[in-house]
Amino acid sequence: MAVYTDVAADDLNKFLTGYEIGELRSYKGIAEGVENSNFLLHTAAGSFILTLYEKRVTEKDLPFFLALMEHLHARGITCPQPVKNKRGGVLGRLAGRPAAIVTFLDGLWLRRPNAGNCAAVGEALARLHLAGADFKMRRPNTLSIKSWRLLYEHAKDRGDAVRPGLCAEIVKELDALEKSWPRDLPQGIIHADLFPDNVFFLGDKLSGLIDFYFACTDTLAYDVAVCLNAWCFESDHSYNVTKGRALLKAYAKSRPLSVAERAALPVLSRGAAMRFLLTRLVDWLAVPDGALVKPKDPLEYFRKLRFHQSVKSVSDYGVDR
Amino acid sequence: MAVYTDVAADDLNKFLTGYEIGELRSYKGIAEGVENSNFLLHTAAGSFILTLYEKRVTEKDLPFFLALMEHLHARGITCPQPVKNKRGGVLGRLAGRPAAIVTFLDGLWLRRPNAGNCAAVGEALARLHLAGADFKMRRPNTLSIKSWRLLYEHAKDRGDAVRPGLCAEIVKELDALEKSWPRDLPQGIIHADLFPDNVFFLGDKLSGLIDFYFACTDTLAYDVAVCLNAWCFESDHSYNVTKGRALLKAYAKSRPLSVAERAALPVLSRGAAMRFLLTRLVDWLAVPDGALVKPKDPLEYFRKLRFHQSVKSVSDYGVDR
Repeated sequence: MAVYTDVAADDLNKFLTGYEIGELRSYKGIAEGVENSNFLLHTAAGSFILTLYEKRVTEKDLPFFLALMEHLHARGITCPQPVKNKRGGVLGRLAGRPAAIVTFLDGLWLRRPNAGNCAAVGEALARLHLAGADFKMRRPNTLSIKSWRLLYEHAKDRGDAVRPGLCAEIVKELDALEKSWPRDLPQGIIHADLFPDNVFFLGDKLSGLIDFYFACTDTLAYDVAVCLNAWCFESDHSYNVTKGRALLKAYAKSRPLSVAERAALPVLSRGAAMRFLLTRLVDWLAVPDGALVKPKDPLEYFRKLRFHQSVKSVSDYGVDR
Repeated sequence: MAVYTDVAADDLNKFLTGYEIGELRSYKGIAEGVENSNFLLHTAAGSFILTLYEKRVTEKDLPFFLALMEHLHARGITCPQPVKNKRGGVLGRLAGRPAAIVTFLDGLWLRRPNAGNCAAVGEALARLHLAGADFKMRRPNTLSIKSWRLLYEHAKDRGDAVRPGLCAEIVKELDALEKSWPRDLPQGIIHADLFPDNVFFLGDKLSGLIDFYFACTDTLAYDVAVCLNAWCFESDHSYNVTKGRALLKAYAKSRPLSVAERAALPVLSRGAAMRFLLTRLVDWLAVPDGALVKPKDPLEYFRKLRFHQSVKSVSDYGVDR
């Protein structure tokens, strides 16, 4: 939620001579996304988002992300569409960073989504999975189960300071997840980070999906598990089965989950909780004491993990086995 | 440069039912201003800025700031115009904060202004001073020379860690300023913070002035001195006499400086440098070691102060005595 790199007006104007989006009227750094610097541009042709990619995004992955947005947009998913420059490319360089311009999406992200919103997200996620089926590029999930042990290594020295006994709990859970992780479920393009701040609504209608910079090729049902974690818990970290049922039923209308996928949902949800617990823990420990910027609370995902550990079967999430 | 308070979409929609600016289509937290939380709104009626006033702005001063913007706008100064709500007021409450909506101004702020831009700022500043002449409200300058000794008290324990000997230099300069500060120069409404990020341009044309939250009643020529500090030094902190001459000449076209004002310009410029040196020093020392957010370098103003101390008369700034 910050602008890491500033752009001088002259430099931006020069960059924009490579595009056909009209004269620049204003640009503002916006608090959107946690990895990159984003600017909202107003030009004679309308509103656009300019992104400068910071070092946490690997430059060689940018063609995948931008091509994916183009692919999904062409298949009717309302997501940002990369704007082509005069040479037909979508990736440039500005202020020493790789840079791209994408179309601006109307819509608000919901700080307090309701069950109807969860249903809309379930439907949109299934449509995204189907639209991604014929996308030719691949990108491994750099935050998959294979990476979690290494993330833990970065946190283990100080993890127990965040919560006594946390490290032992994580190790026990990692052992369990590595033993039981499903390997044969349907794979495809997943968003991998479809949190409320990446989903726009106009009134009750879902109006767009943004931030595809964690998108990758992985287990489709894992993406469902990420959404259960991100959308279906209350602020006290209790699971809301009405929201979970709404999300899962709406997903299944477009893409029914197989018996194997349904059976795997509890372990996939534990894994999704572990992924966000670990990345938040690493970020939390990286911030010096007393800093003005507070990262997100890792223990939120520890509490969600506890819930998933208590689940007996998918029916606890609100749908039939 | 941050958003301190987030606003939920529901709460914002409810707040906007009190205004006649149409349906909300999007809102983004923007990195503008250092004191408040600002959001760029797109509604059916166009673009607006929503400001939530954080604790560093005194609530009882808000009617002054908002009425001043209305007054100046009515006299042809291109500045944000407060949008009236359905009850005719301009100040509301949102997310537990005082809140106001103002019109959006097109334009870019210049990271590298040239002499022509400095002339445009000089002209705009003089027009602002003239337009403020019949504004009825008054607000003392809370960061005037009377406050500097107290600011120094907050910094003195650790000031020498920023630069050895800094505290002694500040005390010596404060003694000199308090002795020689001019008391009888023309007073009026001053912007008091007209830095490049508060002045918008479209091409070479100045398109607007923003951020009136330091505006107050004080010595008009002091505002000129603030602008000399803010606009007429190079990135190596050397004074650019071409820029200074352009700014001062353009100012004088609309509002000629009196002999007494011209004679006082060196001491007023030293004072302006001291004001920004002190506030930056306090902010600098308030940030814990290793924090992710770096405040602005206070020593930039120490170096500018050194230049002003070396000045013999106003002719060193580029204009005749």
